[in-house]
Amino acid sequence: MIERIARLAAIVTIVMALGLAASPAAAEDGYALWLRYQPLPQGIRAAAAPHAAAIVAPAAPSPTIGVAVAELQRGLGGLLARPEPVAHTAGVGAILVGTPAELPAIAALHLPLSGLGDEGYLLRSATVDGKAVTIVTGNSDVGVLYGAFALLRQVQTGAPIDRLDLASTPKVRIRMLDHWDNLDRTVERGYAGESIWDWWRLPDWHDPRYTDYARANASIGINGTVLNNVNASPDILTPRFIAKAAALADIFRPYGIKVYLSVNFASPIKLGGLKTADPLDPQVAAWWKAKADEIYKAIPDFGGFLVKANSEGQPGPGDYHRSHSQGANMLAAALAPHHGIVIWRAFVYTATGDGDRAKEAYDEFKPLDGQFADNVVLQVKNGPIDFQPREPFSPLFGAMPKTPLGLEVQITKEYLGFATHLVYLGALFQETLDADTYADGPGSTVAKVIDGELDHHQLSLIAGVANIGSDRDWCGSDFNQANWYAFGRLAWDPTASSRAIAVEWAKMTFSLDPGFVGPTVDMMMLSREAVVNYMTPLGLAHQMGTNHHYGPAPWVDNLPQAEWNPAYYNRADATGIGFDRTKTGSNAVAQYAPPVAKRFADLATVGDKYLLWFHHLPWTYRMASDETLWDSLVHHYTLGVTQVADMQNTWTAMQRYVDPERYAKATTFLAIQHREAQWWRDASIAYFQSKSHLPLPAGEVPPAHSLAYYEALRFPHAPGI
Amino acid sequence: MIERIARLAAIVTIVMALGLAASPAAAEDGYALWLRYQPLPQGIRAAAAPHAAAIVAPAAPSPTIGVAVAELQRGLGGLLARPEPVAHTAGVGAILVGTPAELPAIAALHLPLSGLGDEGYLLRSATVDGKAVTIVTGNSDVGVLYGAFALLRQVQTGAPIDRLDLASTPKVRIRMLDHWDNLDRTVERGYAGESIWDWWRLPDWHDPRYTDYARANASIGINGTVLNNVNASPDILTPRFIAKAAALADIFRPYGIKVYLSVNFASPIKLGGLKTADPLDPQVAAWWKAKADEIYKAIPDFGGFLVKANSEGQPGPGDYHRSHSQGANMLAAALAPHHGIVIWRAFVYTATGDGDRAKEAYDEFKPLDGQFADNVVLQVKNGPIDFQPREPFSPLFGAMPKTPLGLEVQITKEYLGFATHLVYLGALFQETLDADTYADGPGSTVAKVIDGELDHHQLSLIAGVANIGSDRDWCGSDFNQANWYAFGRLAWDPTASSRAIAVEWAKMTFSLDPGFVGPTVDMMMLSREAVVNYMTPLGLAHQMGTNHHYGPAPWVDNLPQAEWNPAYYNRADATGIGFDRTKTGSNAVAQYAPPVAKRFADLATVGDKYLLWFHHLPWTYRMASDETLWDSLVHHYTLGVTQVADMQNTWTAMQRYVDPERYAKATTFLAIQHREAQWWRDASIAYFQSKSHLPLPAGEVPPAHSLAYYEALRFPHAPGI
Repeated sequence: MIERIARLAAIVTIVMALGLAASPAAAEDGYALWLRYQPLPQGIRAAAAPHAAAIVAPAAPSPTIGVAVAELQRGLGGLLARPEPVAHTAGVGAILVGTPAELPAIAALHLPLSGLGDEGYLLRSATVDGKAVTIVTGNSDVGVLYGAFALLRQVQTGAPIDRLDLASTPKVRIRMLDHWDNLDRTVERGYAGESIWDWWRLPDWHDPRYTDYARANASIGINGTVLNNVNASPDILTPRFIAKAAALADIFRPYGIKVYLSVNFASPIKLGGLKTADPLDPQVAAWWKAKADEIYKAIPDFGGFLVKANSEGQPGPGDYHRSHSQGANMLAAALAPHHGIVIWRAFVYTATGDGDRAKEAYDEFKPLDGQFADNVVLQVKNGPIDFQPREPFSPLFGAMPKTPLGLEVQITKEYLGFATHLVYLGALFQETLDADTYADGPGSTVAKVIDGELDHHQLSLIAGVANIGSDRDWCGSDFNQANWYAFGRLAWDPTASSRAIAVEWAKMTFSLDPGFVGPTVDMMMLSREAVVNYMTPLGLAHQMGTNHHYGPAPWVDNLPQAEWNPAYYNRADATGIGFDRTKTGSNAVAQYAPPVAKRFADLATVGDKYLLWFHHLPWTYRMASDETLWDSLVHHYTLGVTQVADMQNTWTAMQRYVDPERYAKATTFLAIQHREAQWWRDASIAYFQSKSHLPLPAGEVPPAHSLAYYEALRFPHAPGI
Repeated sequence: MIERIARLAAIVTIVMALGLAASPAAAEDGYALWLRYQPLPQGIRAAAAPHAAAIVAPAAPSPTIGVAVAELQRGLGGLLARPEPVAHTAGVGAILVGTPAELPAIAALHLPLSGLGDEGYLLRSATVDGKAVTIVTGNSDVGVLYGAFALLRQVQTGAPIDRLDLASTPKVRIRMLDHWDNLDRTVERGYAGESIWDWWRLPDWHDPRYTDYARANASIGINGTVLNNVNASPDILTPRFIAKAAALADIFRPYGIKVYLSVNFASPIKLGGLKTADPLDPQVAAWWKAKADEIYKAIPDFGGFLVKANSEGQPGPGDYHRSHSQGANMLAAALAPHHGIVIWRAFVYTATGDGDRAKEAYDEFKPLDGQFADNVVLQVKNGPIDFQPREPFSPLFGAMPKTPLGLEVQITKEYLGFATHLVYLGALFQETLDADTYADGPGSTVAKVIDGELDHHQLSLIAGVANIGSDRDWCGSDFNQANWYAFGRLAWDPTASSRAIAVEWAKMTFSLDPGFVGPTVDMMMLSREAVVNYMTPLGLAHQMGTNHHYGPAPWVDNLPQAEWNPAYYNRADATGIGFDRTKTGSNAVAQYAPPVAKRFADLATVGDKYLLWFHHLPWTYRMASDETLWDSLVHHYTLGVTQVADMQNTWTAMQRYVDPERYAKATTFLAIQHREAQWWRDASIAYFQSKSHLPLPAGEVPPAHSLAYYEALRFPHAPGI
């Protein structure tokens, strides 16, 4: 007995020593994301452990089943605080992992898998040979992998796993991240370090981080990744870079993730030495066809091309007086033999400035409805301008029923204070997805447009501009990880609740304690309204500093392209503020279905959220609250600052639930956010007061500095440009 | 008893679970550098543990003593695999950590500390109150900190600590890293990710990595860091960036590390709005004085300015027809009241190309000897050109006895294959330090010039251009860490053995096993000769590709500045190869002291290493080996490739001593190095054969491709430019 104590004590000593030695690396530095797999509270462990006695997998598992099993071992081993064995026969409490074809024991159960499609999964508590077991299955290995992550999520979030009957199938076919990563490792609009793609050392060196990236994405159902910036260097299509992309594709393949590339439309000129990139030129088409063949030789399951054409200086078919559909279809023809697709962006606006930028994508693309090849999807940003804290949904949604429309949202916070502002974007994404286009009567939500249900499209897509970089915590802050997570979960099911997703994420990332989860999720849900209030309340938009988009600059009106100027958007003058998009103005409202157009056009129904987006109103306009517009505007700015202070207070109270490193980081970032929210408020009020010439409402504190002070601030070396 | 077993078992379970869960982060990813503190082999632990029973420190320790104690706890706890307690009284086996003034028990021993200076340390086994203890002391807290790291190094390398009497004092006063980090986080000549300075989130966010950086530097005695690129943005001197630098200075201060900044000589114009930066203009001097005052308000122990002036397009006093000394002395006057220094770089060359670049720094600076203010040090690169795989020492060393000369070496591998080539630079650094200038007779080594001994200077400096970036392993490969380590150790003692340093490093970084240490150190020592052989054998230099300096480009002769062209350096033509720097040529040899000049000028004594550096010779010249020069050149290239293959074989045999992640990475990088060594050989031979028109020596394999193939290779998006 004493001997046994001594042996145990020795083990304790050794293990503790290992822990000690590993302590710097093992600190909660955010690298593990929501896949931390820390030991669960004892009660939850005790309940789950009997149903995770061992993993039973096919004897010769595919690479995908292999990673599913490895993840379950790692996850359950960590969560249940003991090694998770792999067995070859199903004992009591076993977890059977595979398709029916791979595991006869599952086939014998005749489970209802027909509705799961290619990627769905089923988790089912069942009896095999008289033994209670858990089934993780699907029609494909990747479905099984998603099921494995779903089972882990159940355990991680403290849900019971003893009576499982959980089937899920993704509603959207292509769920992808768009990396705006340049080939020199800079990241356009990246605020989390440099690109995680170490292009220079690819294809030789495979950073273990690539595997962890794939794990994280697979855990939330992401199945595609565009490796490079939409402002694409032609060099991505050189043999050197195709080989690098192929190495990444090989790493991602077991995780069900396909690789896509952004391409430069002028590549036939820049790389091929042709005199033109005219999509109707046979040599151009042949060049692209040969290039596609070359890519598929290296990457047999290559996903396809993402194209930014005739937009912000990028080349495109318009350079040859061809339409977007002519350009897209030429590329689509090159990819079609290989089952690849073209993702064509609808983000275009002209340089004239006499029109309304919010109308331009619709004006250009709506007439092309029905002209795109079958393997083209048109990728539309959530709002008609550009990833603002709040925009109404793009009028293209619902307006092009013959064309598969994909949704593009921005996970990186270009216009939202960069990495240090805590803004939970699940709420923003859901606002767009839930918006009713009325394209086919009430209930024609954006979600139904983009998942293909409304117009019966097989091809469906949701893309998020990634917030991922080389920072140890991946996203520039731990809370930014929630936006990656929420994006993936909403891409899987666009009707899901962003709050429920936040709850999942908070539990997995920090703590299951209800004392933590409730307040933290409340804070996250509040955060999106806070940023709208302190940056662009009441439907204002695009008030950010030139180029870097950091901080307030409502006064800027001297940029060469009218639509780059904040003043173009706020239209503040002595008479009032706001952009008249009713029929007395640009009539952008007319691009929406009539019930929506009517709601937005009518001051009685437009609501505060979109008021100044659609209307230019006098400073003294009476709001529903009976305040003047001026007073309400000031109050909203101040409210935004107060809401950040509330977030700070919430977080302070969470200290006891959070490890010191992550607690300190979020605390520091919230302090930055509060300081910058105050700056946004003060600078905006200083500017608008110079137009309104009205006194501040009673009790409101004047800006800390003069308008000239704010105008003079400069931020050289800002990230992400 | 059973209860106790159960409790122990529960602890084991919990601790193992923590270990399990932490496993991804705790993998040997290189982040821990040489401070891994993994448990030592049992025998060594058993021998050391009785002499590390507890740490005794002053009751109210200074921040520096605080970090010394924390490091000892962390280090000894890890190495000895059990917690290291802190005690308030010295029991048997205690380690007493402090200055005599702080710990009366140490004062009572009357130890011989007078020779240790400000930064030296003494480790001494002693008896206090009849108890055997270990003393870690010095005349200052930072000396004690260095002693703590020295004690840890003893334990880490398996040296006994029971009969310690080890005193050490740094020979060089300023031992610094120069970061060529830009304010947008790009790093000039950086191959390890982006800058570790997260400028944007400073001063608010203090990445824990800053502290680990300070720990690593303090562990090898580095006491200064230049935060920004010598090609300096004026913005570094704005209040925003001074505040960021101050935040870093606050973090580094307890570790004995001072912050320095690179400054742009035109800052008074760019920032101050002055019309001139003429150093003799009183307004300019006043601007710098006010700026220095402003900096010292934020950073009371600010180190000073590093200046690259009138070099490669940078502004400088020459723009106003003033001398380097006039420029440096003006800045020195601004810093002198605060005891700051000016580090003025001697790296200059003109654009004419009719001269010899190797002579230019000497020609420009030698006449200024004696004209520099007391607080100026002239920073001279190791060789007369620019950080080549091999150069003779700069003729400035020994030529300016009235001026403190600092040595600048490059730790980052700009001209050495970037991060993936394994090249141990300790051998290169030592070659320079050991070189005899004969300035004051035999034994006037570069080491004695730069440590101030030869010419009795108080101010002495050695600077290494850092190879540190945001990569998880800091340096772009685990073996690159050895170059940071060796730099610091040689800066502390320029007469130290680079092999002995490699042994230390290999033991701490990988394994104490003699089966590992011997072959690995042999491989490291060989590696520097290998790179010379496959890149620039026999005294060739500067044969790298344009701008990025990656790969061979001996054919390039069309760059606008003559001295940028590889052909300028190799001078290969039908008659022969090499740069005649004897009196029949540029007579650069005359810049050296007569015995050195004579040796280099004479074909009988110059030796193979510097043969073509100093001599232009016919292809058929007979080498000492009786081969022709052409045959010898080809053999050297081939030997370089073979040596890399030998390194690969060595490393393969080390697999059992190394964790899988680090083993795999070095294996991959060695494969890249071998492929690129072959490319260097083949491309170089293809080019030189096009000049020599001679057949390859018997048994030599022709280049794999045509010269045209090698000439056509392009490497867009290469790092570090």
